[in-house]
Amino acid sequence: MKSEINEIIDLIKKFRDDRDWEQFHDAKNLAICLNVESAELLELFLWKSEKEVNSEKVKEELADVLYSAFLLADKYGFNVSEIIKNKIEINERKYPIEKAKGTNKKYNEF
Amino acid sequence: MKSEINEIIDLIKKFRDDRDWEQFHDAKNLAICLNVESAELLELFLWKSEKEVNSEKVKEELADVLYSAFLLADKYGFNVSEIIKNKIEINERKYPIEKAKGTNKKYNEF
Amino acid sequence: MKSEINEIIDLIKKFRDDRDWEQFHDAKNLAICLNVESAELLELFLWKSEKEVNSEKVKEELADVLYSAFLLADKYGFNVSEIIKNKIEINERKYPIEKAKGTNKKYNEF
Amino acid sequence: MKSEINEIIDLIKKFRDDRDWEQFHDAKNLAICLNVESAELLELFLWKSEKEVNSEKVKEELADVLYSAFLLADKYGFNVSEIIKNKIEINERKYPIEKAKGTNKKYNEF
Repeated sequence: MKSEINEIIDLIKKFRDDRDWEQFHDAKNLAICLNVESAELLELFLWKSEKEVNSEKVKEELADVLYSAFLLADKYGFNVSEIIKNKIEINERKYPIEKAKGTNKKYNEF
Repeated sequence: MKSEINEIIDLIKKFRDDRDWEQFHDAKNLAICLNVESAELLELFLWKSEKEVNSEKVKEELADVLYSAFLLADKYGFNVSEIIKNKIEINERKYPIEKAKGTNKKYNEF
Repeated sequence: MKSEINEIIDLIKKFRDDRDWEQFHDAKNLAICLNVESAELLELFLWKSEKEVNSEKVKEELADVLYSAFLLADKYGFNVSEIIKNKIEINERKYPIEKAKGTNKKYNEF
Repeated sequence: MKSEINEIIDLIKKFRDDRDWEQFHDAKNLAICLNVESAELLELFLWKSEKEVNSEKVKEELADVLYSAFLLADKYGFNVSEIIKNKIEINERKYPIEKAKGTNKKYNEF
């Protein structure tokens, strides 16, 4: 049985292949795309307080971000669940609870 | 039974709550975080051709991107699978196959 | 006599040419560089209020942003003063005072 | 006599004050604005080779980037020429010619 994430990635790839777009999707352009989509999401918050922000638009822009991130994961053959779990383990060493608790400092500022 | 994505989000939230970091995680800062992480990923490609890029580092930076994106989805109570599926439907109308096939143009350039 | 901005651009280009870096500086990579530097600046504000931000670091990161922006202007042969003046004129039409005064709305939200 | 850059910054501030926008321009939002504008510039290059990019649009988006960067410099009272000159000196130590010449490596990869 396909995992939830693989099912979404397959939908994304069907959309891409129906349009014959894989030819443009090298990893460098996908990384650029991810930045452009993240900035469109961020723009919704520009000059505004959180409650002035349109959550329907956040939904759409966040979907675009995830779309590009999943395509990039697929490009490299990464398992999305696995790489996040691995990164949490790395961060547990970088941000030990006793040092990191309740502070907004970066690990190199401890 | 928890879905795959909800399971990951729960791990991310446990990491956050062990450090008492939710107090810093308003939506605006999460959107900033997502941009900062996306740019760290993009930096791996700067001045380089794709084959010069270290894929182990891509793995780590992409995990950070997904980490922030999932926290933001959780903040708004969005279902990740659902918002991506909805966005694909929107994009199907924006990029009809007969116009979009094989071109790198934006929908407003057709 | 050289203008103030041309003097700075000449210093930047001397730094670049002493290192034989022009070969890497195509416009696409310079635009990526500008995004990476802007995000490093933004990271200084992440999770923080304005008064917690280190202004010495803002100074350095903002210099990096301007450095990449000036190199990109030079790449295209743009006159920096002129393109800003022209953009202000465009923005005056996009944001007429009577509509834009005192509001944080985007021109397409008026 | 006003310097070239101060003259531009004064034009930018007149545009801002005519619209009573200073109230929105805290440093954090200006840093977000700079990221959003940089990403709009980068988007012009997305999926494209350099020669497919519209240079008139590059001109406009780069002007927006410089506009935000100059407002941020003004916010902190920085002298633009000076901070760039200082950063070049820092970079000369970080990237000594004999190590940096002809390589696309970051200083921490030497």
